[in-house]
Amino acid sequence: MIFTAEQAGTLWDVMRWRRDVRHFRPDALDEATLERLRAAMDLAPSVGNARPWRVLRVDDPGLRAAARAEFEECNALAATEYDEGARAAYLRLKLAGMEVAPVQLAVFTDTDPASGRGLGRRTMPETLRASTAMAVYSLWLAARAENLGLGWVSILRPEVVGRILGVPEEWAFEGWLCLGRPEESEDAVSHTPLLHRVGWQENATTQWLRR
Amino acid sequence: MIFTAEQAGTLWDVMRWRRDVRHFRPDALDEATLERLRAAMDLAPSVGNARPWRVLRVDDPGLRAAARAEFEECNALAATEYDEGARAAYLRLKLAGMEVAPVQLAVFTDTDPASGRGLGRRTMPETLRASTAMAVYSLWLAARAENLGLGWVSILRPEVVGRILGVPEEWAFEGWLCLGRPEESEDAVSHTPLLHRVGWQENATTQWLRR
Repeated sequence: MIFTAEQAGTLWDVMRWRRDVRHFRPDALDEATLERLRAAMDLAPSVGNARPWRVLRVDDPGLRAAARAEFEECNALAATEYDEGARAAYLRLKLAGMEVAPVQLAVFTDTDPASGRGLGRRTMPETLRASTAMAVYSLWLAARAENLGLGWVSILRPEVVGRILGVPEEWAFEGWLCLGRPEESEDAVSHTPLLHRVGWQENATTQWLRR
Repeated sequence: MIFTAEQAGTLWDVMRWRRDVRHFRPDALDEATLERLRAAMDLAPSVGNARPWRVLRVDDPGLRAAARAEFEECNALAATEYDEGARAAYLRLKLAGMEVAPVQLAVFTDTDPASGRGLGRRTMPETLRASTAMAVYSLWLAARAENLGLGWVSILRPEVVGRILGVPEEWAFEGWLCLGRPEESEDAVSHTPLLHRVGWQENATTQWLRR
């Protein structure tokens, strides 16, 4: 398979226009779309082909409410750690779309899977969690290419989320994903990511330092 | 930015044809290409826009030889942990292209960056390392779309690589990346990834379990 410069440009556009979306429209996504997005995770690299990601699709209103309450608590606590000016800026940020997003996924890594037979992770077990991060990114890019938005919420205590959902001890929590049609907000239309735009953290340039 | 179904298909093709490449041609890559690939890492998501990845481009033959020797040692040790049949299968696998790949990158995560101002990682500091995994995947996909191959080597002890390269204590090692033109081997032309093809670990399907 040989790609053209135009196809490479398309990949770049998808990556460039991916955003962490926090403003969603409530309309449901159809199951055929969700099935494609689920399958996009199958394309991610994983250490030893272990595919250690474990995904719960949380529809139950009680479970969603419990997770949202956990977010609110962690977010309020996080705000207290900044001094006055930064605290006000922090509290102005909208950091999750958990109250509206029609699809919500809790993503974990099985930290001791039989699959992969240990290959590639003997000295670096953390490659299992890196595999899950790449599976999330596969989903994220596939969603963006279908003009859908995804937001990765990490302002949660892993042990609390694990307790809410009753997952096995060896599943490490990676994040709560909100998925849906983005509102016509700056999330979706601005070329500049929110945190850069509001001055929280400007973009730094990746360096490849010579050795 | 609204993407068409055809553009979404292109993203899928790039993801589907990405491989962990271990057979490289030795020819150098031009610096303009490398500059594009470097910039692809800038497009990755990162917690709080912290961009915590740190990349060393290792050209020095002595440093490369030391890293390769470390791989050989770890790989031989890993083989001893399998029983006889699996050991023979393991030793038949070619798991790194470090002796030939023209570009080699050592990738780390700064686990305590000022950037991002702590946002999103207070309860989940591991999101910094997840950010780096996604930066590597951005590079990987961008390379594939330019018909180049990348292989992620993790059969290395992080503390030994850190010592070889003399990096700060707070940099966590994520992987050694080999980059170059792929040989016309099965790495590049088979639709089925190596580990599935040889029966080491077949592909599993991602599940979204309802809750």
